[in-house]
Parts: sequence; structure tokens; C-alpha cells
Amino acid sequence: MLLSQIADSLTCKHVGEDVKIISMNNLSSASVGQLSFAEHKKYATDLQNSQASAFLIPSSLIDFLPPQSSYIVCDNVSIAMAYATKLFAPKKIDFNAPDPILGDGTYVDERANIENGVVIGKNSTIMAGVYLGSHVHVGDNTTIYPNAVIYRDCIIGSDCIIHAGTSIGADGFGFSHTATGEHIKIYQNGNVIIEDDVEIGANCAIDRAVFGSTIIKKGVKLDNFIHVGHNCEIGEYSLFVAQSGVGGSTKLGRNCVVSGQSAFTDHLEIAPFSTFTARSGITKSIKEPRGVWSGYPLMPHKEWMRLQSKIAKLIKE
Amino acid sequence: MLLSQIADSLTCKHVGEDVKIISMNNLSSASVGQLSFAEHKKYATDLQNSQASAFLIPSSLIDFLPPQSSYIVCDNVSIAMAYATKLFAPKKIDFNAPDPILGDGTYVDERANIENGVVIGKNSTIMAGVYLGSHVHVGDNTTIYPNAVIYRDCIIGSDCIIHAGTSIGADGFGFSHTATGEHIKIYQNGNVIIEDDVEIGANCAIDRAVFGSTIIKKGVKLDNFIHVGHNCEIGEYSLFVAQSGVGGSTKLGRNCVVSGQSAFTDHLEIAPFSTFTARSGITKSIKEPRGVWSGYPLMPHKEWMRLQSKIAKLIKE
Amino acid sequence: MLLSQIADSLTCKHVGEDVKIISMNNLSSASVGQLSFAEHKKYATDLQNSQASAFLIPSSLIDFLPPQSSYIVCDNVSIAMAYATKLFAPKKIDFNAPDPILGDGTYVDERANIENGVVIGKNSTIMAGVYLGSHVHVGDNTTIYPNAVIYRDCIIGSDCIIHAGTSIGADGFGFSHTATGEHIKIYQNGNVIIEDDVEIGANCAIDRAVFGSTIIKKGVKLDNFIHVGHNCEIGEYSLFVAQSGVGGSTKLGRNCVVSGQSAFTDHLEIAPFSTFTARSGITKSIKEPRGVWSGYPLMPHKEWMRLQSKIAKLIKE
Repeated sequence: MLLSQIADSLTCKHVGEDVKIISMNNLSSASVGQLSFAEHKKYATDLQNSQASAFLIPSSLIDFLPPQSSYIVCDNVSIAMAYATKLFAPKKIDFNAPDPILGDGTYVDERANIENGVVIGKNSTIMAGVYLGSHVHVGDNTTIYPNAVIYRDCIIGSDCIIHAGTSIGADGFGFSHTATGEHIKIYQNGNVIIEDDVEIGANCAIDRAVFGSTIIKKGVKLDNFIHVGHNCEIGEYSLFVAQSGVGGSTKLGRNCVVSGQSAFTDHLEIAPFSTFTARSGITKSIKEPRGVWSGYPLMPHKEWMRLQSKIAKLIKE
Repeated sequence: MLLSQIADSLTCKHVGEDVKIISMNNLSSASVGQLSFAEHKKYATDLQNSQASAFLIPSSLIDFLPPQSSYIVCDNVSIAMAYATKLFAPKKIDFNAPDPILGDGTYVDERANIENGVVIGKNSTIMAGVYLGSHVHVGDNTTIYPNAVIYRDCIIGSDCIIHAGTSIGADGFGFSHTATGEHIKIYQNGNVIIEDDVEIGANCAIDRAVFGSTIIKKGVKLDNFIHVGHNCEIGEYSLFVAQSGVGGSTKLGRNCVVSGQSAFTDHLEIAPFSTFTARSGITKSIKEPRGVWSGYPLMPHKEWMRLQSKIAKLIKE
Repeated sequence: MLLSQIADSLTCKHVGEDVKIISMNNLSSASVGQLSFAEHKKYATDLQNSQASAFLIPSSLIDFLPPQSSYIVCDNVSIAMAYATKLFAPKKIDFNAPDPILGDGTYVDERANIENGVVIGKNSTIMAGVYLGSHVHVGDNTTIYPNAVIYRDCIIGSDCIIHAGTSIGADGFGFSHTATGEHIKIYQNGNVIIEDDVEIGANCAIDRAVFGSTIIKKGVKLDNFIHVGHNCEIGEYSLFVAQSGVGGSTKLGRNCVVSGQSAFTDHLEIAPFSTFTARSGITKSIKEPRGVWSGYPLMPHKEWMRLQSKIAKLIKE
């Protein structure tokens, strides 16, 4: 799509060369052929360093564009960005993709629902009622239990187990908000990548990225009802106990242990080998690895134990 | 059904005209043709003002009936009411309903499971494995992703998105309890109405009303794993972040923001533009709009912040 | 399978008679034909009293074996046990089982996915998109709503209702951990038994036992999003409100009431008639029946009320 076409659809005008745009991305991740966006001066440095081919910006940021940039000026970048994502949303089903390709020894139940463009490796088992969307890839020796749903373009590794009713690749929860309180959908055009040796329990939900990928790394094990927001990365061999959740764009290092009903807010970075006891509420990044944490607000587990003994005294006073 | 037939099935006798009863409802919502019920004297005023055509009551409430009422006297109204709901439960599938009607441009995957009586508007997409129960209505430009389930009689608006694995219209959690601790099912004979421009994440559960409707109003956006109990109303443009829940009959005003893992108990009224931070536990109605709330028990967010700083000091003492 | 074959697959040697092993179990539950295991001296008494036909043990426990036992000595019993469970894992689908047997008056939707070996009683209703795995048994007058999944070998009683999207019999969350932080799957070779008159809400997950059965007893009612871990027992007529969970091997007595978002850790024993208010966090067994409990850490509800009034004062100080 040409930049001028995007500008037209937003009822704006473009400035600079009418470059061809393939997709969208954040300032720091964008590359040639991508449209990016900046709303506030706090992103001025990221804007200056961005590799994107074009930008959606307010007039106040024109001076911070990389030299000879193409751009679209708009009053409300957040809303314009949301509308622009719709232009790049792929069709829900790619009917024109080639027939599915199945490796030797793979069993796909005839009552599974497999779209075109699917590729499955060797010795995998896809059970009845499973949905594999267009262009889903599945590795070797992987089992997907009945009625799990893998949305289009998601990638599942080898030696994985995905249990019944789990959703992989539903839209992340992303909206821009109008002045009158309406919510404009930011289309979630990324995907989910599940690496090898991952087990995901029943009725989990791993959301696709808005741009790029949500990633569940090698050897991760998720219990039932785990929520993973868009653009998260869950580090290798991490464990999540039931009913825990991770807000969007949060990244956990390897071998984290997250006990039941714990939750992370969005945009955090969590050091490897961190342990969180039951119902931890994590709202800040953790830099020091190998800590044991508890409570909400979060504190070192030892402090939480001390707090509980003080509270026990307080009750008796 | 005649009132006398209901009385027979409860092994009771009816008093007054043997009126025809079409359905059941609460005292204040009931209208002509409906059977209502009252158990305690605290409902005497509601009973006197009810428009129902007949009543299930204990003998102690006979004096509070509207003039010339038809009624059934029973020892345990709660149990009798539960048994009576079963008499009005529709069949799980209406095989006699007309063939589904699909609007222009609507795509219903041939692997979706559509019962008779379904009506779908224009340009909607119903993907593989979706279940639409008898008499479900879906508007225009709506997408329902694989393996979502819409129970019979529910109504989905236009421009909605419903993600994989979500259940709309399962029975609300309602039982009457015997003296020996058994639970008698109150059949949930209402439905769910999802208004226009609503997005519902993966693996949510919105329960049907016991009588009347559970309502998700225009522009609401729900993340994954949201629980909405029977007879709730979620106000226009409200947002729910993952793993939150709302107990039965609670009503939220417009543009509420409910952060992750928050929960409301039942029968609350929440003022519009209320914001709840993560893991709020709301057990009382909120009359003042535009407040920011935190904690369990709930308190103004500013107080919660002050409490946390006091707790931080307490640990160090 | 012969003990020697198990030893070969673990690259160990067996000692004693080369007995035939049918399955595995814990020391205290094991019987003739079963292989059991012990890792620590704290299990010495259980080991001495076990009825198992053979044992996986470290050399340090040889002296505590019952007389004339057959056994395999291994350096890391936990890892060896995990690998051994894989040897006894049944196939995901038993294609050789007989055709399903349906009782009089039972309706199985032709769009339901029923494996061989299924047996269903009279007057039950199995709706579209339901999956019943190999050898699943369902009683009389039971309804299973669309897209629920019952894994192989699970047993559902009579007069049950199972709502949309619920998973019964997915693998429990069990792993042995290597010194380098990898997780070795313990195959979950048990099942789930749902007794009569049980209702299970939408999108619940009841995990199968590692050995033996996870049991939901007569008359239990579960709301939406309830997690029940492997090997739990939920006592007769207990109630669980939405988004609650129970960790593995925890056993509740009859008529417990568990309010919303509460959770139990694993291996607890809970006295009958216990009540837990919303968001209780239960980490210790409860011996005294009929208590009312609150908070996390858990305390008697009266103490929790007192604590809240003290906290309210603390804020104002």
C-alpha cells in the first residue's frame, strides 16, 4: 500500500516520497517498508533513530523526524494509528493458500478444522474439533487436544502439548480512546510463537502481538487458565500455576516460577530465576535475578512473612 | 400453562382464577401472564405493587397480595420457585424452528454448528466450530471466532467481535437450598443481549439471566477470562481487563474501567465512569461517579496508597 | 510390562523377581501389579507398608523395602519416576474400542465427536461440538453443552449438567525438575470421576489424576472458570463461586462453600461445612468443621473483620 493511500483513508495528506508500506511497527522495532508513529515529545529520540519508512506524527514532532522522512501529520496520532492498523489486517481466512501439508506419521482427525496454508511436521496429533487457522505451523511430535484454537499465522514448536479449549493467537486487548469515551480497535496484526517442549494447560489464552510476536520460549509449562497478553515473552523453562496472568509486553527471564493467581501488569522486565508465591501482584520490573517475592504490592518474601506476623499481632492487640 | 397445572406439579393447590401463565419473573419486573413469588415479609410492598398474574407465597403473605390475586401457597417458596422454573425451561434445541436466515455477504463456515431459528445479518463471519443455538440472532459485520458457543435465544449486535472459546448464555449460578444441604437448580430461562460494537476476548463466560436478560451494552470491551454473572448489566463503553468478574445482578454505569483480577459481588449498582485498579474487590454499591478505587475491602485509591505507605513503615519498625 | 523392561528403559537394573507391572501408584495406594517409588527417608514407613509389587528407590532406601521386594535402584528417583509414567500412558485415542453404546432416549448430536468405547445411559443429551474421548462413560439424564471436552477414561454420572467449553480430564500439572532447570513430564494416567447431580459451569477445568481419580462428589455445583487440580476430591454438595481454584490432591469435605476467586494450595484436607468468603487463600488444612474463614493468609472471618476495622483506623491515623 502506498503512503498516500494510507493518508487518504485517514483523510490526511502525506509529505515526502510516496513510499510503499507493507506493515506497521513501533519506532524501535520498525524497519524499511514499515509505517511507525509517535505521539509525544518523550519519543523524540526514538523517532530520530527509527528505521521506519514513514511516520504518523503530530505537527509538533516534525522537527524530530529522521532526515528526508516521509510522514503523515494528524491531530490525534493515537486514533489515526488505530484506524491505520485496520488497513493491514489480514483476512480472517486465506482461502487461496495451498492445501495443508502433513508430515509422516502425523494424525489429523477428520473432525479437526484445518485451514489452507497449514504445515504440520512429523508424528504430531491434532484431535477432533481443533481449529488451525490459515498458515499455522506445527512442529514434530506435538499434540493438540480437542477444541483448542490456534489463530492464523501462529507457530507451534515440536514436542509441545496444548490442552483442550486453549486459545492461541486471539487479539490482544488494544484500543485507542476518543475524547467522548469510545474505544477504537487497534488491529492485532502480529502472531504467537510457541517454541519447542512447551505444555499449555486447558482453557488458557495466549494473545497475538499487535506487531511482531508474543513468544513462549522453550520448555515453558503453563497450568490451566493462564492469560498471556500481547507481545509478552515468557522465558525458557518458566512455570505458571493456574489462574495467573501476564499483562501486555511484559518479558520474563528464564526459569521464573509464578504461583497460582499471580499477575503482572504490562511493560515489565522480570529477571531470570525469579519466584513469585501465590497471588503475587507484580507492578514493577525486577532487575535482580533469583529473588523470591510475595504480596501485592510486591515485596521480598521475607518481608511479606514479617508483615504477616505483624498483622497477626495487630489483630490480637 | 394453567396455574392449576403448576400447583399440581408442586403438589399444592391454587387459589383464585385459574389464569394462564406464560413465564416467571421477579415481583418488580413481572407483568400480565407471569408467575412471581415472595418468601419474606420484607417483600410485602413489592408484592402489593406487582403486576404478576399469580404468586407463589407462604401463608403469612396472603394479606399482602394485590386484590383478587391468584396464588399458590407453599411451605417453602424458595424450593417451590426452583421447581417451578423447570416447568418453563425451553427445550435445549428447537428442532421445529425455521431454517437459519443469513444476510447478504455473511460467511458461515460449513463446519460451524448452527441450529434452526438462527438469524444473521449482513457481512458477518461465523467461523468453524462455532455453535449458535436455536433462535440466536447476530447483527451485521460481526465476527465470531472458532469454537465460541452462543446458547439459544441470545442476541448479538452488529460490529461485534467474539473470540475463541467464549461462552455466551450458559446458565447462571442459581440454586435453592434444602434443609439437608442439597441444591435445587433454578432454571435460567432468560437470555444474554450483547449490543453493538462489543468485543469479547477469548474464553470468557457471560451467563444468561434467570428471568429477563443479562446485558452487555454498546461499545463494551472485555479482555480474556471475564466472568459476567446472570442478570448483570455492563454499561456502555466499559472496559474489563483479564480475569475480572461480576457477580449476579450487578449493574455498572457507562465507561467504567475494571483492571485485571478485580471482582464485584452480586446485586451492586456502580456509578458511571468509575475506575477500579488491579485486583479491586467491590462489595458495596458506588453512588458517586468518576471515583478511582482500589483494594479489598475497597477504598478510594488515595487511601489505598496511604495505607500501602503505612504498611511499608510497619514492616520496617 | 515386565519390571526388567521398565529397568531397561531407565537404563537401570532390576533386583528380585521380574514381576509383571500393570500400572503405577503412590506407596500408600499401590496394590499388586503396581510399581511405586520413594525418594526420601521420610517415606520409609510408607515404603515398608506398601502393597506395591515393585519399587523405584535410591540405594539408601534398600533397607526399608518390604521383604522379598522387587525393585530398581536409581540415582534420581524423581526423574526416573517421570520417565516411567510415560511407559504406562494410554494412547490418546483407542481406535480398537467397540462402537459407542447409547441408552434409550439419549440424543447425541451428529456434530458431536464421540470416540469408540463411549457408553452413555438413558435420556442424556450430548450437544454439537462436544468431545467424548475413548471409554468415557456418561450416566442418565445428563446434558453436556456444546464444545465441552471430556478426555478419555473419564466418568460422568447421572443428572449432571456440564456447560460449554469445560475441560474434564486434561493432564494435571506435574513435572520432575532436572538440576539444570528443565521439566520432565509426569504422565497423568488417572482419570476424573464426576458423581451424580453435579453441575459444572462454562469454561471450567477439572484435571485428571496422575494415578487414581480426581473426584467431584454427588451434588457439587461449580460456577464458571473453576480450576480443580489432579487428585482432588470435592465433597458432596459443595459450592464453588466463579474463578476459584483447588491445587492438586486437596480434599474438601461435604457442603463446603467457596466464594469467588478463592484458592487452595495443594495437599490440604478441609473439614466439611467450611465456608470461605470471597478471595480466601487457603494454605493449611482445616480440621474443625463449620468454620467461616477469610483472607490470605487465612483467618477466622471474625478476626478478618476485626483486622479490617484496625486497618481502617490505621489509614486515618
